[in-house]
Amino acid sequence: MFLRNHWYVAALSAELETKPLSRQILGEHIAIYRTESGEAVALTDQCPHRGYPLSLGTVVGERLVCGYHGFTFDCSGTCVAVPGQDRIPGRADVRRYVLVEQGLWVWVWMGRGEPDVSLLPATPWLVDTLHWSAIGGVAKIDAGFEFLVDNLLDLSHETFLHNGSIGTPEVATTPIEVEVDDEDDVVRVYRHMNSVDCPPFYSRTTGLEGKVDRWQDIEYFPPGFYLLHARIAPVGQPPLPDGNDDHAFHMKIFYGLTPSAEGKVYDFWALARDFCVGDDDIDRFLEKMQVSVVQEDVDALNILQARANESVEMSEVSVKIDRGGLAARRVLAAMGETALRE
Amino acid sequence: MFLRNHWYVAALSAELETKPLSRQILGEHIAIYRTESGEAVALTDQCPHRGYPLSLGTVVGERLVCGYHGFTFDCSGTCVAVPGQDRIPGRADVRRYVLVEQGLWVWVWMGRGEPDVSLLPATPWLVDTLHWSAIGGVAKIDAGFEFLVDNLLDLSHETFLHNGSIGTPEVATTPIEVEVDDEDDVVRVYRHMNSVDCPPFYSRTTGLEGKVDRWQDIEYFPPGFYLLHARIAPVGQPPLPDGNDDHAFHMKIFYGLTPSAEGKVYDFWALARDFCVGDDDIDRFLEKMQVSVVQEDVDALNILQARANESVEMSEVSVKIDRGGLAARRVLAAMGETALRE
Amino acid sequence: MFLRNHWYVAALSAELETKPLSRQILGEHIAIYRTESGEAVALTDQCPHRGYPLSLGTVVGERLVCGYHGFTFDCSGTCVAVPGQDRIPGRADVRRYVLVEQGLWVWVWMGRGEPDVSLLPATPWLVDTLHWSAIGGVAKIDAGFEFLVDNLLDLSHETFLHNGSIGTPEVATTPIEVEVDDEDDVVRVYRHMNSVDCPPFYSRTTGLEGKVDRWQDIEYFPPGFYLLHARIAPVGQPPLPDGNDDHAFHMKIFYGLTPSAEGKVYDFWALARDFCVGDDDIDRFLEKMQVSVVQEDVDALNILQARANESVEMSEVSVKIDRGGLAARRVLAAMGETALRE
Repeated sequence: MFLRNHWYVAALSAELETKPLSRQILGEHIAIYRTESGEAVALTDQCPHRGYPLSLGTVVGERLVCGYHGFTFDCSGTCVAVPGQDRIPGRADVRRYVLVEQGLWVWVWMGRGEPDVSLLPATPWLVDTLHWSAIGGVAKIDAGFEFLVDNLLDLSHETFLHNGSIGTPEVATTPIEVEVDDEDDVVRVYRHMNSVDCPPFYSRTTGLEGKVDRWQDIEYFPPGFYLLHARIAPVGQPPLPDGNDDHAFHMKIFYGLTPSAEGKVYDFWALARDFCVGDDDIDRFLEKMQVSVVQEDVDALNILQARANESVEMSEVSVKIDRGGLAARRVLAAMGETALRE
Repeated sequence: MFLRNHWYVAALSAELETKPLSRQILGEHIAIYRTESGEAVALTDQCPHRGYPLSLGTVVGERLVCGYHGFTFDCSGTCVAVPGQDRIPGRADVRRYVLVEQGLWVWVWMGRGEPDVSLLPATPWLVDTLHWSAIGGVAKIDAGFEFLVDNLLDLSHETFLHNGSIGTPEVATTPIEVEVDDEDDVVRVYRHMNSVDCPPFYSRTTGLEGKVDRWQDIEYFPPGFYLLHARIAPVGQPPLPDGNDDHAFHMKIFYGLTPSAEGKVYDFWALARDFCVGDDDIDRFLEKMQVSVVQEDVDALNILQARANESVEMSEVSVKIDRGGLAARRVLAAMGETALRE
Repeated sequence: MFLRNHWYVAALSAELETKPLSRQILGEHIAIYRTESGEAVALTDQCPHRGYPLSLGTVVGERLVCGYHGFTFDCSGTCVAVPGQDRIPGRADVRRYVLVEQGLWVWVWMGRGEPDVSLLPATPWLVDTLHWSAIGGVAKIDAGFEFLVDNLLDLSHETFLHNGSIGTPEVATTPIEVEVDDEDDVVRVYRHMNSVDCPPFYSRTTGLEGKVDRWQDIEYFPPGFYLLHARIAPVGQPPLPDGNDDHAFHMKIFYGLTPSAEGKVYDFWALARDFCVGDDDIDRFLEKMQVSVVQEDVDALNILQARANESVEMSEVSVKIDRGGLAARRVLAAMGETALRE
């Protein structure tokens, strides 16, 4: 049911404290915390003794002490102390999950074997704080992963669902191009809105006025990572043949799609921009806008899941705007079949 | 499970606005709204594209635009616009339900074929505002339709459940007469309380004092319409042989019993009176009293359903006061069998 | 699924009023109330007429009148009045449950036959108000009975779950002794903490300072009664050979474990002490502390049940501290098998 041999966003780096965080990812409960020395640790969130969530325990130094009867674990998940006796019983260890911190986000390897580092998405824009300013957040959606994929792969919904903020009429009316890279399973959706009104936020922050070229180029790396390259530039000035695009303004919009349990998904997001770098007011403005936009998605997807839960039949009528989402479904289905064969 | 070839109350006329209303009737989600020109429209509340509720969309002129991706429908349920392309795909239309507005109430035909107008209940008292003052409301009950039928057909519960308001001892002690009209399936329950104390509300509004004759004559038109003819008159002055009853005061108490989903029912109500016509203070007094009475029923029926949900066995002991309710059950069961054969 | 032929705590004596209480015990809904003369009565909480909970009815004199249609029952559960007719139908009686009031607590016999008074737990400390001051309360836990048994039989959890109040490090580190009385199925767990710091509450109330002997001797009478004998005494002064222990301070901590429905249990508690007898301030202090401690247990057990509900597999690693709980499980399992054979 879940694609396990992948990296998923597990937390925001800022969420990790000595007070553990409880996350359910691919159906597995995980306690995520920092030790007192600052190491990021993720352990199975269930004490092997009587099943109490370890996330309700207490970090003491480099160890986590269960909050019910005091079974104690080190960073590797090894049980190192038990109340009332010196001998540590066998089978008392818990799984440690491998975490990787990359800028704002903390990734977890959910596969059974050794982590495949080559599959870890690259997010240099979240790390290079000299040239990029980034903010991030997370929302929990009571809807299945597949509804979030549909949502993100078809941005024409911005015009209607987010019409008070990021939606403009051109998003829905501009035709898209869809590509699937069969080599690495990446789905790409291009929407180039040329010579359109500059959205107010961008005029204010970039100095551009009147008409602009506004591009939205999606790269979806199934199952868990989505990157939208937003580009605002003077009309008719595409990137140079050598790739140089310094005359444009760029925003990278990241989503980490992390299935929680059946019918539940975490919607991690991050925004990085190469203009107004270091401007805290812009950070706050963007955060407020994005939180509001994400909430509109959360509300819509929660409703879709609730309807799906009750409906016996549910047909779909697909049109051109759905080609990105349909391509993503095909890639995900193929990955699921491959996973079943392994 | 539901009796479909019937009219049910779908909404109060006053509820219909350009902002759509979402109702679930006989298990079907329906978006109900007025177009900008004022036409009352009811469409399947599910966009054929990706299933988003159309009731969350926006009325633009005579059309309804889906709030997720902008699929657009006219008053007939025909899809007339799709984002990103000019061609309208097949299979993108939704069902339009036929509505009829009659005074305070809006009725919907839930049958599959053409509406049978001969089955539409007559409610002249809700239309003739010259001689009758009417008010109405609706409550949603988390209990099955059958519990509401039982409740309304046996008014002896007024003495106990509504003893702070409309219940008087005589309601429970006065014997009833029950008739079933085999021709048209109407169940009639007569309770004539003669020479009883005039309830305070009626003394205040009618000028009658001391003892009165107080009649409660129920007509239940299964499945969805219930009409209680309440009559207050000087003692020993029945209607004249020619039907004239101008020396009495009349209140018509209407209930629209509209099954929502399994274990859920809408309880529409309306009160019309032929005295103190046009008196807004009386309207407000009656509304407050009726809302309180209906809430007592809602609370009781919610509890009965909750118990029914958990109980494995549930026997009943029926007595004389139950003859109306038992008659209603028989008629409903026969209608259900007929519906199955069709 | 439940052990029926036993006494369970049904209510606090102080909870019984003419306004009935609704309790679900071993899956059975029971209305518990006092008549106007003060008799404690427990009847099946379901009217035989249409199933309305009798606990929503009204006590009139020695009778209970159903709040829906007025069916009326005497203290034996016999139906004595029905609305609208004089004849009482057959099959209209409800079960009366036998209650016994013993100090703060009211016990109910849940067996099908005659109550076995020899099985009624003795709680003289709750009755002898001259030598003992007692307080009591109840919490409802959304977790199965078995989680509460585990919790109470292993007090090492006090050190971790209740570390802000009654937990001290010695509770977890002091070895326990466990005995099972095969004759009468009683499980006993002894934890004698000798020469340990006197907990602040006891210094303040007993005058003892510095080190003390602190004993916790559990007696669990399966299924529903648990008694913890807490003893605080000067170091090295055990009870005399003749049993006299007047030089020590005693607190009796009672729990009534009353299964409500599957996955739900009532946690009745009472504290009786033989020091500061009659001191209302101590009563209030202890009540506040105990309510807080019980809430910590409620929160923990609710979480365990929630996890158990979703988990497909759940292994346990048991250690020495678990011997009391494991013994209790064995006794309960044997009682269950015996019950099945009967």
